Amino acid sequence: MTLILGPDDVAACTAMGAMIDAVEAGVREEASGGAVYPPRANLPTTNGFFRVMPAVMRESGVMGFKVFNGSVERGVRYIIAIYDEPSGALLCLMDAAYLTGARTGATTGVATRYLAREDSHRVGLIGSGLEGRTNLAAVCAVRAIEGVRVFSPTRAHRERFAVEMSEELGVGIEACDRPDAAVAGADIVIVATNTTGHRNPIAYRGAWMEPGQHVNSIGSTGGGLREIDPETFRRAQRIGMDSKVQVEGESGDAIAALEEHAYAAERVVELKDLVAGGRVDRGPAEAITLFKSVGSAVQDVMAGWAVYREARRLGRGTEIDDFLELKAF
Amino acid sequence: MTLILGPDDVAACTAMGAMIDAVEAGVREEASGGAVYPPRANLPTTNGFFRVMPAVMRESGVMGFKVFNGSVERGVRYIIAIYDEPSGALLCLMDAAYLTGARTGATTGVATRYLAREDSHRVGLIGSGLEGRTNLAAVCAVRAIEGVRVFSPTRAHRERFAVEMSEELGVGIEACDRPDAAVAGADIVIVATNTTGHRNPIAYRGAWMEPGQHVNSIGSTGGGLREIDPETFRRAQRIGMDSKVQVEGESGDAIAALEEHAYAAERVVELKDLVAGGRVDRGPAEAITLFKSVGSAVQDVMAGWAVYREARRLGRGTEIDDFLELKAF
Repeated sequence: MTLILGPDDVAACTAMGAMIDAVEAGVREEASGGAVYPPRANLPTTNGFFRVMPAVMRESGVMGFKVFNGSVERGVRYIIAIYDEPSGALLCLMDAAYLTGARTGATTGVATRYLAREDSHRVGLIGSGLEGRTNLAAVCAVRAIEGVRVFSPTRAHRERFAVEMSEELGVGIEACDRPDAAVAGADIVIVATNTTGHRNPIAYRGAWMEPGQHVNSIGSTGGGLREIDPETFRRAQRIGMDSKVQVEGESGDAIAALEEHAYAAERVVELKDLVAGGRVDRGPAEAITLFKSVGSAVQDVMAGWAVYREARRLGRGTEIDDFLELKAF
Repeated sequence: MTLILGPDDVAACTAMGAMIDAVEAGVREEASGGAVYPPRANLPTTNGFFRVMPAVMRESGVMGFKVFNGSVERGVRYIIAIYDEPSGALLCLMDAAYLTGARTGATTGVATRYLAREDSHRVGLIGSGLEGRTNLAAVCAVRAIEGVRVFSPTRAHRERFAVEMSEELGVGIEACDRPDAAVAGADIVIVATNTTGHRNPIAYRGAWMEPGQHVNSIGSTGGGLREIDPETFRRAQRIGMDSKVQVEGESGDAIAALEEHAYAAERVVELKDLVAGGRVDRGPAEAITLFKSVGSAVQDVMAGWAVYREARRLGRGTEIDDFLELKAF
């Protein structure tokens, strides 16, 4: 029996707390050596890309893949498949458009758990799209957030975000008309933008950083995409990355910072090492920290598995019988 | 709209002639540079493997992937996804257990078209499983076959094969109780075995080769699997491979032959170069030729596409609405 989950099912089965724990368990398994995943394959199409990201989680007993295709300009389609690792059965196929945003949030939640001050109460958010929503929900799941300020360039977007997310998360959210005003005085900053095609793609500047702040930046997942400046890297005393090789190879922000020699390699810590450490590890309270991510198959498979389990609990989705035959060799 | 095709749908939508032409078109696109595919990822699981094989066919306008997992001992599950390349829409998800056997046959059909004598009429077959069936059907689709002899170790299997496939293909098939008797006097030999766990895994010997013969060997797709001996490579004047790098890196038969320096690199020709040549290219009529394959994502995607088109024509399968959302970035 294979379960098919469309966009509505996946949204209904995303519980952010459970997803953060699932991604954290996956990252811990990366540290312990149980996770197996190749460099992600990125194939050019005539007008975009076709990417395939598999992962086997031998300790968790789950495996799967995400495939996504399209282009930044025309839009992207995502599918995640989840298998039972011991038996090899295909458990679930799900749309992963919303899920990719949710797992990016969940990954930010894990990083925030280990890099932000435990007494963080105020969030400054730049961006009011799907990732703004999921990343804010994740930060609220790991810290006792009391107030949020949000900026995005379109007034109607930021005001709608403030109303809707305030109700969803039960926390006061104020829409600001300038990005520096949104992040002033924040304990935790979230930069979650799509600045493709903007005249000035830098949405957050290191000049705005304040002592004790933790900054999460989750846009700029491709070489041509930007959202933070090299000064942000320069001022961060500790820089978390979900994968140093992939962030430094793929993120336009990291590539620009490296060109300016904005940070020393010693300041970088991978998320798996933070999680393996098991406690907040940011240095002194007044230290400034940064988390930069581009995503990984481990995050996708673990987040998809959390959605699948929730779907089974809630009875969501469409079953398909005997979809894949077990072939004797 | 995504079409779901289970095992029965795929079997009903496999037309061998169309599939051979589809695989040949894909191989031609490999030659012209339109096909994009990475080295296949092979991830170890706790008790087997998890393999992911994507391909983008930029000229044909189709892309997709095959994922298969399991173990030779416990059995394997296969799934193929087919996308429309220009729009990026997911057209179809299909079970590929039968299809993998069928596309292996179709690939043999392409190789036989370019390596076997045009006046080939007699086939000797070793193996009576799924691949025996699909490979024989493919050879009968590209040459005017008048008689077949089949051997497999279990009498009931080879006799049932002879009765059933004789009816299906409309050609006389005789079951033989020895492999050398089955291939004696044959113009085309097919070796399609699973000799896992056999005391002597060699099912076909180069000593049995006869002038003018063309031999297709499609088992031994892993380093631990065998079916033909190094002498088979030594006596072949021309050795076709679907991929030289993958056959020589992955097939236990080729690895054993290389260890004995049984053939010179100049004798190897890749299938894409045979197809690009556009005519039978075996050397003199009395030359002995060999084709050895391990499979490729190009073959999978093109064969899956042929099945999808036939399913649309016949109205087979189950439609799923709005399965993958197109996400604006």
